[in-house]
Amino acid sequence: MNIGGKAYRTIWLADDGWSVQIIDQRKLPHELVIANLRSLEDAAHAIKSMQVRGAPLIGATAAYGVCLALRQDSSEAALDAAIALLAEQRPTAVNLRWALEEMRKAVRNLPLERRVAAAYRRAGELCDADVETNRAIGRNGAKLIAELAARKRPGERVNVLTHCNAGWLACVDRGTALAPVYECHDAGIALHVWVDETRPRNQGAALSAYELGAHGVPHTIIVDNAGGHLMQLGLVDLCLVGADRVTSNGDAANKIGTYLKALAAKDNDVPFYVALPHSTIDWSLSDGADIPIEERSAEEVLVMSGRSQDGRVLPVEIAAPGSQARNDSFDVTPARLITGFVTERGLAVASAEGLRRLYPEEG
Amino acid sequence: MNIGGKAYRTIWLADDGWSVQIIDQRKLPHELVIANLRSLEDAAHAIKSMQVRGAPLIGATAAYGVCLALRQDSSEAALDAAIALLAEQRPTAVNLRWALEEMRKAVRNLPLERRVAAAYRRAGELCDADVETNRAIGRNGAKLIAELAARKRPGERVNVLTHCNAGWLACVDRGTALAPVYECHDAGIALHVWVDETRPRNQGAALSAYELGAHGVPHTIIVDNAGGHLMQLGLVDLCLVGADRVTSNGDAANKIGTYLKALAAKDNDVPFYVALPHSTIDWSLSDGADIPIEERSAEEVLVMSGRSQDGRVLPVEIAAPGSQARNDSFDVTPARLITGFVTERGLAVASAEGLRRLYPEEG
Repeated sequence: MNIGGKAYRTIWLADDGWSVQIIDQRKLPHELVIANLRSLEDAAHAIKSMQVRGAPLIGATAAYGVCLALRQDSSEAALDAAIALLAEQRPTAVNLRWALEEMRKAVRNLPLERRVAAAYRRAGELCDADVETNRAIGRNGAKLIAELAARKRPGERVNVLTHCNAGWLACVDRGTALAPVYECHDAGIALHVWVDETRPRNQGAALSAYELGAHGVPHTIIVDNAGGHLMQLGLVDLCLVGADRVTSNGDAANKIGTYLKALAAKDNDVPFYVALPHSTIDWSLSDGADIPIEERSAEEVLVMSGRSQDGRVLPVEIAAPGSQARNDSFDVTPARLITGFVTERGLAVASAEGLRRLYPEEG
Repeated sequence: MNIGGKAYRTIWLADDGWSVQIIDQRKLPHELVIANLRSLEDAAHAIKSMQVRGAPLIGATAAYGVCLALRQDSSEAALDAAIALLAEQRPTAVNLRWALEEMRKAVRNLPLERRVAAAYRRAGELCDADVETNRAIGRNGAKLIAELAARKRPGERVNVLTHCNAGWLACVDRGTALAPVYECHDAGIALHVWVDETRPRNQGAALSAYELGAHGVPHTIIVDNAGGHLMQLGLVDLCLVGADRVTSNGDAANKIGTYLKALAAKDNDVPFYVALPHSTIDWSLSDGADIPIEERSAEEVLVMSGRSQDGRVLPVEIAAPGSQARNDSFDVTPARLITGFVTERGLAVASAEGLRRLYPEEG
């Protein structure tokens, strides 16, 4: 997608042919900073510190992390150690483990001297596949928006509410939940996005608003508290969110607060869709309650970063000094609250049957 | 209540016997600043700018605003103008209008030269009555917490979740939703409060956490997104919130986001209580949808204030530059999601019948 007229992915190979470049998302929306990953440790740090975030992008970064590790040591032991290290950086998004297993499969039967090249080839394929997958999600989800648009009177827009960032910055490109939005906007359908701020890290206000703005999509930032009220007022036609892990029964872990929006959508008969690629489905779990939920530092709640009037970006304490905070990063929305899934293969009912129908090979 | 060992109310008469002092709540939690109100305009500004906030405290401030107005001009026209000006500063909390009508009743049949003294006397009475009312709310709500505590195993605490600030800082003293918490804490019942941050103005993280901390009540700040997840985990025993206006059918307008917590409480069988004094009930409305909802400036969403590392309190921009924001301050929780009301007269079912049984004189 474009930033200031220049096309970007969130991750790419540098001109040297081996180091990896990423957009450092901790610096957005205030600065566009490109960071270089030159080692396994760089990749692990990028994931842990959330220079990169978003389930698909975490997977892509981990894939390149394996490449960087093998470049230093292509032994079986080094491969195992790299995969183990990368897997433990973030516990909830299953795409991370999925991508690592794809990398293992790509190199494990190869002689050591061919592993590095094979790893880079596979990481590149995974990135390209992510973009294609997201384009398909975009086309499939666009039908939902187009149907809503067809029911609008002239001059009315379709109002989509999204939580966190499941846009192109969460993926290699295009996005999951925002892919249908871009698809429809590009096709000339009048729409507007309510962007949940998404505390504590503000991925909505900082990232979704940033990328929607860069693409020219009309949008309005709201605090996370507001979405239910807007649904009560009839100002939301569709909720569209991403996911970090979906269990085989259709429960979906996503950014903390997603569950609250799903409850409000149900209470107000607003369709609530979760957009995801196949790599987000954890076929080994059949209940969302079994998904490990990452707990991050209290500081993310108690301290906020922003740009001061003199242009510096700095952290400020926002809470009563001495208070504790708890910071669970994700919650689980039960399948009963999800109208459906938008995947690269089409729409699915949020149930074991619905998912198995789309992915019969996984049953 | 105490701050640093010294007893405070949120509003009081200055030593000069006529000007009014308040805690400037915009400066909390970083600084304890006392502001002086010397005119009707000062009082109106204090309400509008949220130097004072919280439905009962807005009412108390408006009462003293009438005193300050009459001191300058005690005519009928000046009284009407003062009441009209004060009433329009905040549209949602009905206590404001209630207090203004109480003030009108107290002075309207008096000769001009006796009005000022009568007004100050009545404003003082309203403040004292607020404290007594809140103590009664505290005692009545304490029974709910005590019942939950009785079911706990030794060493377990009762976990109360609250949204926004309905503590003593929202009232003249003691609080509404937090009054039962103080009552139980003082009685030695082991409890812990989950404090919703309450974006955009962070009354939870800045004010509730501040006053709970000053009183020694164990508490943990969470982002507004987290409460549903904590309820899913069984970590919330009771939700207790305040209200800005309750209609005669039991619908409750309160800080934006309250509705989402009520939905989650219902979905997880967590009791959800709204604490309020009689002055918060609007007997003239029978449906929460008719409550006017204040929309405040987008800047409250896009800019955040906090203390930087060098100790200065300053505003920082936190959202993608150029993005719009919408900022509705309240939402309406329908009576069907409210387990009950905690009032100065006891507990009530959230329904027309429940309210009328407690306040038969209003039927």
